[in-house]
Amino acid sequence: MTTIRSLGVYDVRFPTSRQLDGSDAMNAAPDCSAAYVLLRTDDGRHGSGLTFTIGRGNEGVVAAVRSLARFVVGRTLAEISEYMGGFWRSLAGDSQLRWIGPEKGAIHLALAAIINSVWDLWAKAEGKPVWQMLADMEPERLVRCLDFRFVMDALTPAEAIAILRKGREGRSLREAGLRERGYPAYTTGSGWLGYSEEKMRRLATEAVAQGFSAIKQKVGGNIAEDQRRESILRDAIGPDRLLMMDANQVWEVDEPIASMRQLAEFNPYWIEEPTSPDEILGCARIREAIRPILVATGEHCQNRIMFKQMLQAGAIDVCQLDVARLGGLNEASLWC
Amino acid sequence: MTTIRSLGVYDVRFPTSRQLDGSDAMNAAPDCSAAYVLLRTDDGRHGSGLTFTIGRGNEGVVAAVRSLARFVVGRTLAEISEYMGGFWRSLAGDSQLRWIGPEKGAIHLALAAIINSVWDLWAKAEGKPVWQMLADMEPERLVRCLDFRFVMDALTPAEAIAILRKGREGRSLREAGLRERGYPAYTTGSGWLGYSEEKMRRLATEAVAQGFSAIKQKVGGNIAEDQRRESILRDAIGPDRLLMMDANQVWEVDEPIASMRQLAEFNPYWIEEPTSPDEILGCARIREAIRPILVATGEHCQNRIMFKQMLQAGAIDVCQLDVARLGGLNEASLWC
Repeated sequence: MTTIRSLGVYDVRFPTSRQLDGSDAMNAAPDCSAAYVLLRTDDGRHGSGLTFTIGRGNEGVVAAVRSLARFVVGRTLAEISEYMGGFWRSLAGDSQLRWIGPEKGAIHLALAAIINSVWDLWAKAEGKPVWQMLADMEPERLVRCLDFRFVMDALTPAEAIAILRKGREGRSLREAGLRERGYPAYTTGSGWLGYSEEKMRRLATEAVAQGFSAIKQKVGGNIAEDQRRESILRDAIGPDRLLMMDANQVWEVDEPIASMRQLAEFNPYWIEEPTSPDEILGCARIREAIRPILVATGEHCQNRIMFKQMLQAGAIDVCQLDVARLGGLNEASLWC
Repeated sequence: MTTIRSLGVYDVRFPTSRQLDGSDAMNAAPDCSAAYVLLRTDDGRHGSGLTFTIGRGNEGVVAAVRSLARFVVGRTLAEISEYMGGFWRSLAGDSQLRWIGPEKGAIHLALAAIINSVWDLWAKAEGKPVWQMLADMEPERLVRCLDFRFVMDALTPAEAIAILRKGREGRSLREAGLRERGYPAYTTGSGWLGYSEEKMRRLATEAVAQGFSAIKQKVGGNIAEDQRRESILRDAIGPDRLLMMDANQVWEVDEPIASMRQLAEFNPYWIEEPTSPDEILGCARIREAIRPILVATGEHCQNRIMFKQMLQAGAIDVCQLDVARLGGLNEASLWC
């Protein structure tokens, strides 16, 4: 019987602000950081998971992990894996802790780190990577991992099972393709707002040489500067590769409509986080106004209830789930 | 020159769960608590403010207050009061701390406690209660206290000034009325879900004797039990006093529509928090379906951006601002 014996949490920080790595219009000088959780079991297993922050405030998430630890230590892997959805609810739903969210902010980030460490522990016990374990799971079992609270008006467990069962068609073919060609990725490595134009051009050229066919650039500073940087980037990657733009929430609802008109000549594929992550109605309006440029958002979307409404309102084209901001893989899986 | 010399924060808890005071369908056993902030200045003044929690998790808010303290200590009351909106933004907008919200959860609750302590300090320096200081403020000055970020599509500073200026008409009459008759209030003192029916009836009868003309009852447990309790309460307060109901978020979007049909015979004035506080679209649907019963919500509404959308979507009748959950009096003032 595998029982969780301890939950350790580490405040890990990297001084990325020194080189302005990760810098954007909202986050001028981030220090990439994590609240890193390490579970240890009585039979020598371990599982680790994290949530990401950008420096100050990481201590608050670490404190929140400690507040949740009492609901984890002493639980067995057998009971957790038998009903992961119930385990998730026992953490997310503790009424006293829930008050400081609910299901958002530091307490929900802490939940993500813990839940992801449990998935890691479970997958290691099964001897598979997490993605493989999820893909192999029977639909009924996967659905028992999820908490449908506050999404039942859009998706019931029975509907989810039907979708998953249908999704099994062609699964082995898709898996073989994934193993052969890998999973498509883009890079923002060249696009940080604090980088010089020269550094940006060099890194973009290198990314193309490495085989990237999609590149993302930060925008939302001065519009003339945005135009100049996009022009350099489009020039470096050529006309056919995808160029995405990311405003990191700095604009008021009406601003991206004007700004994207001025950036349209560089043929952007999407604009990411065009305004506050809490904007459902605003995003829907922006999306309507800037077609065919797509609206991408979700990195800071707090929980499944907001994602549900984003989809109900037709507010987004590209749903950017973050398993370290949502309450771990369970909550993210609701919309995969 | 009044300079803030120190910011102390206290983790205050009351064991209210022993008697189930404050209990409801979502929060079965709350321990009413606060992160309590005390500012001290170099010239012997002080200001205090708090945010409310229900026990576990209060330590996380206290940690978040400590993370924000560096932006407060050393500031002068003169610079803060000259541009309170900018001061607010310097706390709410620190990009590293903002990441663990943004503008929601523990970090935003902590902001509320700090900001409210600053208002207390300022009002004491002016020798007035806070409400009086706010009411006396010139529209231009009050508007400079607010941060319009992410609400400019609905309300600009110029529009707010015009509204406030118009509101000055009849102000002295309203103030005299307030001083004479007080501010209308209701009580939930009898309505906690964990109270016995006998205790509930006794407290409701006492509340009527004390002059209360409006009483709120918790619902959202078993519907037959809800009906029995509402029947006792309506009987105790008579047909003419207002009876409000509060589900504290326990229902899925479709449930309050069915439940309020079964509770309509007790003539409820409003249903409060009929579902998740993140539900804009769901609340709009509920409101449409249960008229003429009003929808009240906001106690857990995280920030001005959500309130703005609640109003844009026609999702609520009664806007329940909480200055201890929003980022203090400034953010709450946007919708007063």
